[in-house]
Amino acid sequence: MGDSSNNVKVLGSWASPFVLRPRIALHLKSVNYEYIEENLLEGKSELLLKSNPVYKKVPVFFHCDNSIPESLIILQYIDEVWSSAAPSILPSDPYERAVSRFWAAYVDDKWFPALKATLAAETEDAKKAALAQVEEGLALLEEEYGKLSKGKPFFGGDQIGYLDIVFGCFLVWIQVIEKFNEVKLIAEDKTPGLFQWADRFCSHVAVKDVLPDVDELAQWGLKLRAKILKAKATLK
Amino acid sequence: MGDSSNNVKVLGSWASPFVLRPRIALHLKSVNYEYIEENLLEGKSELLLKSNPVYKKVPVFFHCDNSIPESLIILQYIDEVWSSAAPSILPSDPYERAVSRFWAAYVDDKWFPALKATLAAETEDAKKAALAQVEEGLALLEEEYGKLSKGKPFFGGDQIGYLDIVFGCFLVWIQVIEKFNEVKLIAEDKTPGLFQWADRFCSHVAVKDVLPDVDELAQWGLKLRAKILKAKATLK
Repeated sequence: MGDSSNNVKVLGSWASPFVLRPRIALHLKSVNYEYIEENLLEGKSELLLKSNPVYKKVPVFFHCDNSIPESLIILQYIDEVWSSAAPSILPSDPYERAVSRFWAAYVDDKWFPALKATLAAETEDAKKAALAQVEEGLALLEEEYGKLSKGKPFFGGDQIGYLDIVFGCFLVWIQVIEKFNEVKLIAEDKTPGLFQWADRFCSHVAVKDVLPDVDELAQWGLKLRAKILKAKATLK
Repeated sequence: MGDSSNNVKVLGSWASPFVLRPRIALHLKSVNYEYIEENLLEGKSELLLKSNPVYKKVPVFFHCDNSIPESLIILQYIDEVWSSAAPSILPSDPYERAVSRFWAAYVDDKWFPALKATLAAETEDAKKAALAQVEEGLALLEEEYGKLSKGKPFFGGDQIGYLDIVFGCFLVWIQVIEKFNEVKLIAEDKTPGLFQWADRFCSHVAVKDVLPDVDELAQWGLKLRAKILKAKATLK
């Protein structure tokens, strides 16, 4: 990789789906990096506050003297800096790039808030409404998977691409939410395309070693839930 | 421009800041296009519902057989399709691209909601809090303008670039909000860099003819405000 692979660091938290994104991208492109763990349930580190003063969130990506926050922006940066390292993360066709960016933004701005709301819900009705929204989004993504993969294994075709990484980073969290609510969200009878894709994605060599354990993540989810509900109670 | 400039259309509303983005980008790159007006205060057209079924919002960009929603995605698409037409909208350096994308997302996700909240505020306190947030964001953008422009006229350097378009599209709306609240938000003594930049941006040949008139936009703003407050009252 030459000089570009020097001084690559990811500041993250093992439980954050967003942190998986740069890590998977770096694995795909065989770029060595140092991983620095941030404990999100405790205070925020000086490094985090200094390198992402606006949002104070992980991941932050460090490369040479630059720090870059926001996982979608980091993914594009990695794709552009290590452009010669196969595979390309974004498609090469401008329209396919636009479609990938559209669904990536949909996942982050519309679908993920619903997933999070299932965890933060204070009533059964609020939880049911959030789960219905999650399933509605999954139905849209199932349809889009059919269109974009064109019979190939991934959203990105033969290789894991942008939307695979963006959406795939939530798969273990989906399992946690399934467990908490005794439902199946991605299942063979409901979302057959996503069901097979999820299996392929999670067992991919660039992915499997960074995914958290579902039981450990569930334990962490319970702590996060308690923290969210406590914060809500304080605001009342 | 060859084939690429055929069948280019923008579906928009004259009062939407987001619609100015693809229009300014097309003007910069000298791409001919057809503009189709959508009346946002009435119902949504079939064309809008069909071409942007997820968000049902303008702008929608049409090119050949494709339709693309979401102004930031459209800007990147235009830059990639008409890549040989100077000027380039995004910087060429990956880190500078990441920084531009970061502040563009900040403008849309953090700063614009505060600007909108000044219009939708139901109490004086809520309005003051929103105006303070707007000013806080402007102070950050003033600082960033100093860093990114490096003494040149625009965020993009010598030419109007991505962040110029993304933030500049709000300049007439800022004037409307200033008028409504009898304050100066961008002013020589508060934000000297942005003050001069705003003047340069609004008088640029690719920009000046698409900007709405401030008094007409203020009239429209009053109608929008009434609509928002009515919707809020219905929810109570």
